[in-house]
This record gives sequence, structure tokens and C-alpha cells, in this order.
Amino acid sequence: MAEKKDSIRIGVIGTGRIGYVHAKNLVQRVQGVEVVCVADPYVDRATEWLDELGITERYTDPAKVLNHDKVDAVYICSSTDTHADFLVDAAKAGKHIFCEKPIDLDVEKVKNALEVAKKAGVTLQIGFNRRFDHNFAAVKQAILDKKVGDLHMIKVTSRDPEPPPAEYVKVSGGIFLDMMIHDLDMVRFLSGSEVKAVSAAGAVLVDPAIGEAGDIDTAVVTLWLENGAIAVIDISRKAVYGYDQRVEVFGSAGMARTENDLPATIEITGIEGSRKEKPLWFFLERYNESFLVESEAFVKALREGTTPPVVGVDGLEPMYLAMAAKKSLEEKRVVEISEVR
Amino acid sequence: MAEKKDSIRIGVIGTGRIGYVHAKNLVQRVQGVEVVCVADPYVDRATEWLDELGITERYTDPAKVLNHDKVDAVYICSSTDTHADFLVDAAKAGKHIFCEKPIDLDVEKVKNALEVAKKAGVTLQIGFNRRFDHNFAAVKQAILDKKVGDLHMIKVTSRDPEPPPAEYVKVSGGIFLDMMIHDLDMVRFLSGSEVKAVSAAGAVLVDPAIGEAGDIDTAVVTLWLENGAIAVIDISRKAVYGYDQRVEVFGSAGMARTENDLPATIEITGIEGSRKEKPLWFFLERYNESFLVESEAFVKALREGTTPPVVGVDGLEPMYLAMAAKKSLEEKRVVEISEVR
Amino acid sequence: MAEKKDSIRIGVIGTGRIGYVHAKNLVQRVQGVEVVCVADPYVDRATEWLDELGITERYTDPAKVLNHDKVDAVYICSSTDTHADFLVDAAKAGKHIFCEKPIDLDVEKVKNALEVAKKAGVTLQIGFNRRFDHNFAAVKQAILDKKVGDLHMIKVTSRDPEPPPAEYVKVSGGIFLDMMIHDLDMVRFLSGSEVKAVSAAGAVLVDPAIGEAGDIDTAVVTLWLENGAIAVIDISRKAVYGYDQRVEVFGSAGMARTENDLPATIEITGIEGSRKEKPLWFFLERYNESFLVESEAFVKALREGTTPPVVGVDGLEPMYLAMAAKKSLEEKRVVEISEVR
Amino acid sequence: MAEKKDSIRIGVIGTGRIGYVHAKNLVQRVQGVEVVCVADPYVDRATEWLDELGITERYTDPAKVLNHDKVDAVYICSSTDTHADFLVDAAKAGKHIFCEKPIDLDVEKVKNALEVAKKAGVTLQIGFNRRFDHNFAAVKQAILDKKVGDLHMIKVTSRDPEPPPAEYVKVSGGIFLDMMIHDLDMVRFLSGSEVKAVSAAGAVLVDPAIGEAGDIDTAVVTLWLENGAIAVIDISRKAVYGYDQRVEVFGSAGMARTENDLPATIEITGIEGSRKEKPLWFFLERYNESFLVESEAFVKALREGTTPPVVGVDGLEPMYLAMAAKKSLEEKRVVEISEVR
Repeated sequence: MAEKKDSIRIGVIGTGRIGYVHAKNLVQRVQGVEVVCVADPYVDRATEWLDELGITERYTDPAKVLNHDKVDAVYICSSTDTHADFLVDAAKAGKHIFCEKPIDLDVEKVKNALEVAKKAGVTLQIGFNRRFDHNFAAVKQAILDKKVGDLHMIKVTSRDPEPPPAEYVKVSGGIFLDMMIHDLDMVRFLSGSEVKAVSAAGAVLVDPAIGEAGDIDTAVVTLWLENGAIAVIDISRKAVYGYDQRVEVFGSAGMARTENDLPATIEITGIEGSRKEKPLWFFLERYNESFLVESEAFVKALREGTTPPVVGVDGLEPMYLAMAAKKSLEEKRVVEISEVR
Repeated sequence: MAEKKDSIRIGVIGTGRIGYVHAKNLVQRVQGVEVVCVADPYVDRATEWLDELGITERYTDPAKVLNHDKVDAVYICSSTDTHADFLVDAAKAGKHIFCEKPIDLDVEKVKNALEVAKKAGVTLQIGFNRRFDHNFAAVKQAILDKKVGDLHMIKVTSRDPEPPPAEYVKVSGGIFLDMMIHDLDMVRFLSGSEVKAVSAAGAVLVDPAIGEAGDIDTAVVTLWLENGAIAVIDISRKAVYGYDQRVEVFGSAGMARTENDLPATIEITGIEGSRKEKPLWFFLERYNESFLVESEAFVKALREGTTPPVVGVDGLEPMYLAMAAKKSLEEKRVVEISEVR
Repeated sequence: MAEKKDSIRIGVIGTGRIGYVHAKNLVQRVQGVEVVCVADPYVDRATEWLDELGITERYTDPAKVLNHDKVDAVYICSSTDTHADFLVDAAKAGKHIFCEKPIDLDVEKVKNALEVAKKAGVTLQIGFNRRFDHNFAAVKQAILDKKVGDLHMIKVTSRDPEPPPAEYVKVSGGIFLDMMIHDLDMVRFLSGSEVKAVSAAGAVLVDPAIGEAGDIDTAVVTLWLENGAIAVIDISRKAVYGYDQRVEVFGSAGMARTENDLPATIEITGIEGSRKEKPLWFFLERYNESFLVESEAFVKALREGTTPPVVGVDGLEPMYLAMAAKKSLEEKRVVEISEVR
Repeated sequence: MAEKKDSIRIGVIGTGRIGYVHAKNLVQRVQGVEVVCVADPYVDRATEWLDELGITERYTDPAKVLNHDKVDAVYICSSTDTHADFLVDAAKAGKHIFCEKPIDLDVEKVKNALEVAKKAGVTLQIGFNRRFDHNFAAVKQAILDKKVGDLHMIKVTSRDPEPPPAEYVKVSGGIFLDMMIHDLDMVRFLSGSEVKAVSAAGAVLVDPAIGEAGDIDTAVVTLWLENGAIAVIDISRKAVYGYDQRVEVFGSAGMARTENDLPATIEITGIEGSRKEKPLWFFLERYNESFLVESEAFVKALREGTTPPVVGVDGLEPMYLAMAAKKSLEEKRVVEISEVR
């Protein structure tokens, strides 16, 4: 593919599932960008889709991308434990950065990486894609449009269709950092407020192996927000009917809430009642479009030199909330965020 | 109206709003009962509807009803502070008892009254009418039918259309005892389980006067159930769109949830989108039919000599939960129910 | 029960199912009326509910009610073939009349009866109860409130849960007069317009016995309205999922439509998708409240001396439409209403 | 872009709006194809998107594509009046053909073109994309899965968000051929049955200019199907709330129906009731994915040498139905399809 004039030139680090999602959007659907190169230790496993997308410059060494002189911005889509290092390297190389969440499971590493990026003056967007989901964005807009009035309550429901293997659970950082991090971000996004304190309840109800791995699979977390509102998040590692992703916000002027996206609107009515379809199965189906909108927002920020909609601190703050939730679960009390900061 | 053979003969104490609701159902819609007499210090204020219902025997002194030799059962529909005393008197007089909730705001008085009733061997049903609501009863049935599988989570939303006056709030016993008591009962009803521990969050967001009266108007309470499930209740003293009464239960086999009842199913679609009606305004509209079903269940228990579906302990247990919630709010920690028992 | 001052005194002719529905509402729920007496050749079959309602004056001879000096108004709830005669007798006796539909299957008898009632100057309301249904009344209100703008299209769906016996079909007057008459009235009610012409399609798809009885069980009728709009009605004698009663109106400003009423709002989501309940089974369940509102409207008209909301001509006009539909089905062409008038 | 091995090579004739839709899908999303070249008299107007898609071989003369030796199949996306000629030329050149609907407004030209394609033995698919819409395909599947039982009734609602200019209306072939053709195809698709007879009603209610152009803008058509079922289609040139595309099928085992697709599932509840969003605005938004599925089906048929899901006769039969509808409107009677064949 010929080089496009004025294109923002992107290098993608990590050619796994999420790397593919981003690369495909960048090549086919995002205007004004081109994917110059990719890197992954196992880049040969991605040959088929790299061919399909016409991406010919391929490396096993990420440094080749991070220091590529034709690359304006990098997408960090590698495994979580490498995010922070690549973020630092990219910032030092003066590249703009789109970084998948979480930046790291260790808060000090995250703080350091954000500091480096800040000093380097590069643009950094964190991959909280759900903010760009059509349903949640509509709720945010309803709040901005004063349809809900003063916020009193935020409710987030988040259930996965199936639990991860216990092996994964062991290194995941725990349900709050690994899974609820998205929902904690959602509360910050919808409320536009920081959180003061957290209280958590949890149980092992889905899979005993998760408990043996030292984690829980079902949790309810209550959050006291700086703006006075209360938020409550309920999550489960397994809903047999598929990915359950809903929010409800309530305030002085009313309520806004979302339903799950369904594959089709069909309703079949028979002697057993009326049946509608199950929700879309998992995040690739449900949030497919949000990844596109997310990248479009990143590219727009780069092009216009503006602050992107999800910045570095958005990658850090939910970690404190997750840490406070964990502490609350252990100590059976309300934990102030200041205690874990 | 001529005395019906084999009718269960009922005396109603309290001819205010809820007394009227019960008397009307008993006279017009419940099979096999008759209302023999009523008593209320202000019984003359009820002349119109007593005439309408053909109830001619009217007293200002409750003792006349409690000791009436033609009365088999009494409905205690008077002000809350009189419930426990009338319950005791009725039990001693050997009358079966339907008692509106709460039995009292003081747990010791409640325990004593239940003890007396137990010793007297009379049948006692407590007025948790929401258990008989078509929507919530359908959820209970879905659980019994194994549609939800093992229960993992129960969520109850309960919002009033408008807050009570601050004067009322002062003597109400607080939002947990006064308002959330129904929702606490709902959790026990749906789960069929007792509660181990409680954690509460609360705020004054609706009306500062409620805060000045020493109460809150917005709350989220998390409950650890004996059966392992987690429940969460969110309530508000004011939803501008009307009475918001919903539940959701989630478990290993799926989810069951209810929507509010609407006055009509109409949907109007125009340039602003599609509009449906607001929920029914308040409890008399929404729970109108539940009061009938509740009385039918009481009468059935009397006739068949069986245990009624809501017994004395159902009036006591939610009080402990409310007390634990209050304590949790004050002490910012998880409170075991055993601490307040 | 003591006679109420200023009550409108009613006599009910016909103590079958619909007579019971009306009598019960009149005794228990309609303000300012009393049921003085009833008549039916088989009045002894109604002893139980007459006792229950405290109606003691009972006759086998309708003339006793029609000429009763304490009766202000009669409810004609007897078999269809007697409606017109009783209507004439009641009018001549100076009684106001609520008459169940249809007035008669013979249009000349209907015209004559209406003429007599008109000359007698009595108030006459025809029992098209669906106009008083909460859903359809809401659609009418939406039209009056200009939510739909100029009417372009009206769609009525009407499906019974089970077909009548073929024996009944033979004497029913046919599907258009027997079943669609309500939907034809609905078109006139919602549009506020008369109909110019009709085209019909029909088939025997539910039960061959209906075909052998000379009728059809499935039909679609298109109507050209005087106001320019087009209406289309589809009906079936059998929907396995229960009574299906919906309307949709469409116009220059938007659309209003209704869904069926369900027993509860519960939705159960599992591996098979999400399931809601079936519609209420049949007309007694679905239209229960509409019979009350209908009687309240009749009583209000009597009390205020105003024209009732469903007058004599409303009993006649749908008959012409039904007759035109039948003719259209036979002649496979559009039939002007003027052809059958 | 390098030539892919084993790719099916496609030439696109017509680079207007629908040509772009197909080319984009073929380049980016359909597996195993490549777009070799395009032709359009105004191909220079498409430079931007042709660049974007990397399509470099561009002609003003369609013959260059039709006779291109590297082209296996052509997409005919030019103006309607050229479809039949290009179809004939492509068939004679031995190219497989995807042809947008309608093939022509003149039935003789269509018959001739289909004859030529048949003799040439090439694969031909007609662009009735709605068959591939997720909602309608789900209804078809429900029918195949016996969820509806024996079909009794099919109802199709089709309303455009805004009427075309009167100038277009004059050359459009009329509302039945131009707009309802899709809905007539939908009836054939869902029923799997041909149509015996048609009856039509119509009016000018949206725009008098459409009436002056000799057409109508609002119509209801009833169809008698060979399989005994009855279908009814209602269409309007203008729904202020956007594109309204719904179907309902009813039969011996139940009903299946679809709702419109909405931009988001958000529901906002306030003092005015609950509001959901308007449907997606028009066909490019609503049917976007259906164009992809349609092309995938065509490519699959080519690759497997099977009959495509929409064949030549599917382009012809709805024309007869549209012609019969027009005749019925004029003659105010039921018209047998055999009369216009």
C-alpha cells in the first residue's frame, strides 16, 4: 500500500488478539493513519492477518518499532507485564502512545511510567475502550445534557460469560485489578468524580479453583464519590447467558440505563411466553465498535494536539480503587482511598 | 348484609388508609370472610367508606373489637406505636392476627409480642405485602423452578416518588427501619436465607431537612447471606418519575428480573425518540392487588390451619438487619447480625 | 344493603358471564349506583354471586325489570337475539339503556331499535368496552394530543386464544360481525372518522370445521377512511400464546402503538435467551378494568345528562363495515359502504 | 496490494454510493476476493475512496470491465436503466454476476436478461440485501425451526425517513416497483411461497407533489399466497422518526417479530416518562452489515459452485406483484398474478 500523505504513522507492538483488533481498525477504518510496522516475539503466528491487512514490515524485536524513524505513535498491545517498560521506552523515543490497560499491576511502576511520559511531553491514551461504547457514551451524554440532574447513584453490572483458568487467575492481580478495573473506570467516567472511599463484599460462587488460587469470582463494591454520589458495582466471572454489561445512573432529574446489545431484535412468542436473544457473547463482539471509536479519538487528539479523552491518570486511579477494594474485603471495613495512595 | 355461614369473622382496628384497603378487599373480594366490626379513635372520619362497604358496627375503643365474641381474627392497621400492644391483647383474647408492619420500632417490644402470640397459639401474619406482588412472586417462583440455579446475587431497587416530611422522618425510626425494611424482607423472601452480615453506605442527597432530622435519604446496603449469596439494596426517598420497585436475581443458571408496572403499554415514537409511560405513582397503585392476595393467603391459612406465608419472625429479622445497617453506617465497617441480636 | 340516596338505580337483564361482570362492578366499584334487581330465565344459576353481591330482587321475567318503577336504567346483558327487543321495550318504558354489543345481527332490527330509543329520548350506550381499555384509550389520547399528527394509517391486530365451537360459528353471523366488529369499532374510535370502502381477504387456516360451517377463521381487512387515512385489521380465531390485542397508529408526526398486557414484568435470562410471560389469556382478564371504566362513563353521562361516549350509531356503523367486508370477500373487489347501507 | 492466490477477481461497474458500499466490503471484509477494476462514466468522482481502498485500475467504459480477462465476476451497481444491458453483456462474456435490484423497470427486458444469463450458465445473484439483515434472517430461521408452525400471516412494515424528490418519483416506476419491491421480496423470502393474488390500497398523504407526479406515497397491499397464508405490507414514504423496518409472522405455533435497530439501548426515565432512541436513520445505517453478508453469500456460491440464495427469478417475481398491485389500485379489485404475467 502506498504511503499516504499526512498520515499519522503507527507501529503496533504485540500481534495477539487485541493487537489484531487495533491493527485492523487502523488499516481499514480509521482515516488518516497508516500502520508502518509491527513487532512481537511470535510475529510469525500473525502472518495470515498481517498479509490480509498488507502490513509487510514485521519484527520480533519491539525496539525496532519503538525506535523506528517513520513511526509517529505506538500501540502497546503486548502482554501486561511489558506495558510499563514499553511505555517508558516509547516516551523516551518521543513516540506518542496508545497503551492497553492495565499499564501494570504494580502501582509504582505505573506511576513511574506516567512520570516519564509526562516529562517526555508525548501524548498518551489508555485503552479503556468501554468509554467509547455506544451505550455507555449515550449515558455519559445524558448526564452532560442534565437528563439525570444531580447524580445520586451509579450502578454498574459486569458479568463475564465464563471464568478464566485458575492459572490465569493466579497471575491476574485479582478480580478487582483484573476485571473490575473497567467498571471502576466506568464510575469515574460517568460521574466525572474521584472516589473517596470503598467497601467490598466478595465470594467464591462460580468456581472453587478460583478460590484455591486465592481470588474471588463474585463481588459487590460500594464507592463513596467526591461529588457526594454513591456507586455500586456488581461483578461475576460467569453468566451462563453471556456477557452482561449494563449501567444505571440515578439523580435528581431521573434515571438513565442501558440494556445489553443483542444479536437481533427478534421476539418469538409461543406457548412458553416470549423469547428474545441472549446478549452478544463476549467483549470482542460487544465492544467491537468501541475499539474503533477509541482509536479515532486517539488519532484526533494527535492530529489536533489536544488532550486525549483517557489520559495517564485514568490508568492509575482505578488501581487505587481496586487496591482499596481488596483491602476492604480483607479488613471488613470501609477503606479510604488515601490509605492506599 | 346477612351473616354468611362458615365465614371467618374479622374485626379491623384502624380505619385510616391501610385499614380501608384491607376492609374493602375483605368485604368485596376475599371469599369466605366478613368484616364484623371496626375500631378507631377517629372512626367517624371513615363514615363514608364504612357506609359504602356496609360495615355498621363501629367503635372508638379497640378493646371492643379485640374482645368481640363474634370476631375470629383481627387486622391491626392502627398507628405503628400501637401495633405491639394490640397484638398482645389480641393474642391473649385468642384472636388470630394480621398485623401491619412494623410490629414496633423497638425490638424488645416486638420479641415480647411475638412470644405472647406464640404462647397463645394464635395464627399471626405480618403485613409484608410485597411478597404477594405479581412481579416479585414471579421471581420467587422462577427461583423455586430452578430457573436461576444456585443464587449468587440479589439486587433490590426501591425508590419512593417523594420524601416524607421531616417531622415524620424524626419519628420514623430512620430510613432502614422505616423504608428499607420492605427490601430487607424481600431479600429474605427471595433467598429463603437469613443474613450474616451487613455493610451500609448512605447520604443526604434529596432533602437537607432529612439530614437535619438526623436521617439519610439515599442508601446502599450490602448483605452477606447464610447461603453464600450476596445481596445489595439501593433506595432513595425520591425518584421524580415515580415509585421505582425492581428486583434482579442472578445465579448459576441465569437471571430473573422485573420492571416497574406502567399505567399502559403505549409507546409513542416521534422525532425525539420513543416514549413509554412513567411507573405507577406510589404503593397504593402499584401494590393494590398484592394487598388482596396477602389477605387471601391469611384467610387460607386460617381456614386450613396452616402456617401463614409471613410469620412473626419475618417481622423481627429485618429489624436486626436494619439495626445492623445503621450501625455499619455509623462505624464504617461490616456488622455481623449477631452483634445486634 | 340500605338504599343509597341519589343513587342511580339499575336493573340487569341477563345473569350470565357478562351480566356478572357488570353487576359486580356496579355493586362494588362504581360510585353512586345501586343494582335494584336482575332478571334471567335461568336466574337460579346465578344464586351464588347474587348472594355474594347482596342482590335480592331476582326475576325470571325480564319485563319485571324493564317495567320496574324503581329502575332508572337497565343493562341488557342477555343473549344477542334478545338485545333489540329488550332495547325497544326499555326505551318505551323510559329507561336509560346500556346494551351489550351487538344490538342484533340483523341491521334492520338494529335501525328500528335505535329509532325507538331516539324517539323515547332515553340515554343509550353500546358496550364497546375496548374503547375504555387503558392501552387503547392512551392511544386515542395521544392522537388527541397531536402526538401522531395527521393520521395516515391505523393497524389493529386481534387474535383470540382459541376458536369457538363450529356450532357457535354457524349462528354467529360470521367472523366479521361476530369478532371483527370490535376492531371495526376501534378504527372508528381511534380515527374519529367514518369509513368509505372496504376490501377483505380471508382464509380457513385454524380449524376446517369453521370452514365447513361456512365461515373463515383468519382475515385481513383494509379500510379507506373518510379522513383519507387507510386502516388495516388482521384477525385470527386462534393464537396459541393467548389473546393478542394491539393497535398501531401512524401519521405525519409519528407513531403510537401498544403491546399486550402481561401477568408480570418478569424477564428470565438463561442459556436459551430471555423469556417474558404470555399475554393475559382472554377478554375477561385483559379487559376486566375496561368494563368498570365503561360503566363509570355510562353513569357519568346519566348523572350529567350528557351524551355517552358510545352511542347508538356506534352499534350500527360497524355492522355496515362487517357486511361490506363480507361482500368484498365474496366478490373479490373493493366495496363501498354506500352499497350495503 | 499483491494479487492473492485463488482469489475470486471482481470488477465493479458503477462507483456511486452502492458501488462504494460493495467495493469497500469486498476489499476489506470479504475473504478470498479482490477487486481488480472498476468502471463508471464519472469514475473520477470516486478518486478518494478508490485510493483509500487501493483500487488502481479504473475505467470510464464499462466494457473494459465486462470483458476484462482477469475478472471472474462483476458487480452491477450502475443506474437502474443500465442493469439489464450490462447483465446481458456480462453473461455473454461468461462473467458471474451480482446485480443490484431492480434488474429493470420493464419486465420484458428483465425476462430477456435472465434468459441470456441462464443460457450462458453463469451464476447470478440479485441484490435483495434485506434477506441478509440480522433481524429478518432470524425470523426466517425461526420459521425454518418450526417456531411459528404453519404460516398464517406475514406482516411487513416499511417506512422511509423522507420522500424522494418528485422528479425522481416520475421516473421511479411507482411506489410498488421502486419501494415496495423489497417488501414483496421479503414476503416471498419469509414464506418460501409464491403469490396468487394481490389487493392494494393507496393514498397521497405525505407530499402532494408525489400525487402530481402520478404516484402515491402511502400504501397497504394484501397478498394471497400459494401456501394459503395471507400477507399484508404497509409502506409510507415518510416516517419523521426515521427508517421503520419491521416484520411479523404468525402461525399455528406462535409469532415472531422484529423491532427496529436503535443506535443505543439507553432508556432515560424522567417526569415525562421513559425515552428510547429513534431507529437508525436510513438504509445505509440499518442495512450496512446486510450488504457484507450478501456479498459473502455470493462469493460462497461462486467458490462452491452452488446456487446463490437470491437468483434471477427473485428479481422478476416481485415485479409481477408490484404490477398486480398497481392494477389492483386502479381497478379496485383483487388481481390474480396470472393476469399480469
